Amino acid sequence: MKIYDRPGFPNPARIRIVLAQKNLDSKVTFESIDLIGAEHKQAAFLAKNPSGVLPLLELDDDTLISESTAITEYLDNLDGNPVLTGRTPKEKAIIHMMQRRAESGLIDAVGIYFHHATPGLGDDLQKYKSPEWAHRKEWGERERAKALQGMAYFDGILRDSSYVAGEQFSMADITVFAGLAFADAAGIPIAADLSALQAWRAKVAELPAVKNRSGQMFVEEDLRRMGF
Amino acid sequence: MKIYDRPGFPNPARIRIVLAQKNLDSKVTFESIDLIGAEHKQAAFLAKNPSGVLPLLELDDDTLISESTAITEYLDNLDGNPVLTGRTPKEKAIIHMMQRRAESGLIDAVGIYFHHATPGLGDDLQKYKSPEWAHRKEWGERERAKALQGMAYFDGILRDSSYVAGEQFSMADITVFAGLAFADAAGIPIAADLSALQAWRAKVAELPAVKNRSGQMFVEEDLRRMGF
Ligand SMILES: N[C@@H](CCC(=O)N[C@@H](CS)C(=O)NCC(=O)O)C(=O)O
Ligand SMILES: N[C@@H](CCC(=O)N[C@@H](CS)C(=O)NCC(=O)O)C(=O)O
Repeated sequence: MKIYDRPGFPNPARIRIVLAQKNLDSKVTFESIDLIGAEHKQAAFLAKNPSGVLPLLELDDDTLISESTAITEYLDNLDGNPVLTGRTPKEKAIIHMMQRRAESGLIDAVGIYFHHATPGLGDDLQKYKSPEWAHRKEWGERERAKALQGMAYFDGILRDSSYVAGEQFSMADITVFAGLAFADAAGIPIAADLSALQAWRAKVAELPAVKNRSGQMFVEEDLRRMGF
Repeated sequence: MKIYDRPGFPNPARIRIVLAQKNLDSKVTFESIDLIGAEHKQAAFLAKNPSGVLPLLELDDDTLISESTAITEYLDNLDGNPVLTGRTPKEKAIIHMMQRRAESGLIDAVGIYFHHATPGLGDDLQKYKSPEWAHRKEWGERERAKALQGMAYFDGILRDSSYVAGEQFSMADITVFAGLAFADAAGIPIAADLSALQAWRAKVAELPAVKNRSGQMFVEEDLRRMGF
């Protein structure tokens, strides 16, 4: 199978962690899509994923799967032991609930802020981010506030449990972890008093499937093109 | 188990269809939450679901599950035969992908339009819908346009397949179906030329689990309070 993604980007990082956790690294090839150059908004890529975002999974029978949750469901269930998405009905329910909260309350909120209230990935992509809408920046700022609330919410959860969806590392942790990396890159650091969230993050960063995979946001070439 | 919801509302309708499809009606009790009176934004309900939305599932061991996808995962997996969320890795992946597109491209987009660009459920709830933001209406209108695009996207899908995620009725169909009912109620009808979507909708409305469950949006009392 093949993954279209870009190293150093937050949603692609979710799937790279899943692949490592499920020992599937040797089963995939990667094709890098130039997000800064807006390659994902051109016809060739949109024909594969009309949502125009990464990551995207292509199976050997040409089936195309977008959405990190959907890709995770696929990869996690291949060995019949879905530790990341839940083995029992209750585990599945709690993981999907927390994962959805982590998307709308954190990683997606940061994304809207980054692409609408900041220069984002630069001019080539900004053309696709509703430049005609005068109030896009306010919308982005509102989502920034939502992301800060999301962090506080997860800090509260992590005061009482080891991981985001209970006592086991799951898809929900991966989304929060990638969301925080994106927040750092977008200039929304974790508030100093969210100590449970900070401690959980340090712990997750040391897990074998996570270590060396998502510490650095954006590859050198992309950083240079963005003017850093 | 217990479901907190409100008859006649779109996301609650998703779970009512799931319950019927899985023959679980006799296993649940319902508690009606007064959305028009903003009961879901008061402390008692927020303690159960900090997201402040319906539906919410309470298990007999007091576990609380919000998010329609998460509740569906629970109910669908109880009998070990998850026909709505997928039995194989590939089914799961396609269903989750299409279901997520149906949320962001349709039912959630309609919700943002309804609550921000129209009087929504009325004054009691509007207080919680960012009345201080001068440009909320434009945001809502943008989401209305997104919902129309979503309908066109699903029409295209349904030209080539019997259901939203392939040849079987699934969670993705339920989300699109509830999204269209919500769109009707919010004044966003399906464009006349989307004939595949219209035909699919008529077919789904006749399925035993769907029939008599979601034709009518909003109960009489709620319609009266909204001034209809
Ligand atoms: N809900 C999607 C989100 C994917 C997403 O937003 N990916 C980002 C990369 S981190 C992207 O492609 N952004 C490009 C853009 O917004 O134009 C998922 O779960 O995969
Ligand atoms: N993502 C949630 C959405 C739930 C939702 O928005 N529910 C509506 C009822 S249809 C609600 O509670 N609205 C109240 C409000 O927005 O204040 C889910 O899948 O359950």
